[in-house]
Amino acid sequence: MLKEFSIRTSQQVEFMKLTGQIQKLLDESGIQEGICYIYIPHTTAGITINEGADPDVVRDMTMELNKIVPIEDGYRHAEGNSAAHIKASMMGSSVSVIIEDGKLVLGTWQAIFFCEFDGPRTRRVLVRFN
Amino acid sequence: MLKEFSIRTSQQVEFMKLTGQIQKLLDESGIQEGICYIYIPHTTAGITINEGADPDVVRDMTMELNKIVPIEDGYRHAEGNSAAHIKASMMGSSVSVIIEDGKLVLGTWQAIFFCEFDGPRTRRVLVRFN
Amino acid sequence: MLKEFSIRTSQQVEFMKLTGQIQKLLDESGIQEGICYIYIPHTTAGITINEGADPDVVRDMTMELNKIVPIEDGYRHAEGNSAAHIKASMMGSSVSVIIEDGKLVLGTWQAIFFCEFDGPRTRRVLVRFN
Repeated sequence: MLKEFSIRTSQQVEFMKLTGQIQKLLDESGIQEGICYIYIPHTTAGITINEGADPDVVRDMTMELNKIVPIEDGYRHAEGNSAAHIKASMMGSSVSVIIEDGKLVLGTWQAIFFCEFDGPRTRRVLVRFN
Repeated sequence: MLKEFSIRTSQQVEFMKLTGQIQKLLDESGIQEGICYIYIPHTTAGITINEGADPDVVRDMTMELNKIVPIEDGYRHAEGNSAAHIKASMMGSSVSVIIEDGKLVLGTWQAIFFCEFDGPRTRRVLVRFN
Repeated sequence: MLKEFSIRTSQQVEFMKLTGQIQKLLDESGIQEGICYIYIPHTTAGITINEGADPDVVRDMTMELNKIVPIEDGYRHAEGNSAAHIKASMMGSSVSVIIEDGKLVLGTWQAIFFCEFDGPRTRRVLVRFN
């Protein structure tokens, strides 16, 4: 019941669309109704649902998140990626989407985005249908 | 199993209480135990749980969110509502509430709030009990 | 099916690890698969998943959240804890974790943290396995 796939990010801070891969897992499962949980098992990356049509939206989001949580700001954590940890918690580590008639019930403009805050890296995405 | 209702917001940025409408859907369903998912299918609005007793709390929240994510800040997205998209992801697109004895298990001061960031508009709220 | 435990925080703003207590509840339940919901029934505290290995990470997180949402900022709410309410909504009131083989499926560095923003206080944590 626990599904998993990997993605490769290419920027330090980057939002990457996951909707297609998750709908594909749902199609393969044959599940018609329930809840789809998507979980990110990382501490410098998160997940969010936002506009998928105009790529300027996620560009503005990453730009503004970098202003709100500056990459350098007198942090103590020796690895130097505290800003990434903070942004990960601001976006969250999971989203829940309703399933109806075998489809993810998303709004017209919504897409599911992996939020990379300390890339580029290979990352894992966990999915469970309940 | 998928329920839906509409609300009409009246401000550009506004938190609107949903608790009563959701408890009513739960009462009608007869469900006694489980999880209640409330999902917002929009990209410039979100949902959160916070204090419902003193309206100054949500007034302070919207005031402070407007400071953290200014409405104008050199965004590229042509529609001019990037701040609303960012705030939507900061609040999140869904909340999950435990159901026990046919009631939403909320803390004494908690209420469920629709978070409008690009109103006024007519908006949809999706609900599923699992 | 609804479990509950209490914790005592000791600082005004403090992240406290809950992973061990929640895994213990899961062990006692005998549940092998599903979703674990952890819900905070408070409006000046939240919950998040982030790095549990280096305590500097959560120290940096609380320091930076205090910068983003200053404790004093012209708020109207008479109780004087509006910053705590705002930070609570930024972190969120619940997290969902996948259960597989009787274990919480967390990433290598992930821990579940209670986020105190208006302590020290005695706080409740609600848990349901679905």
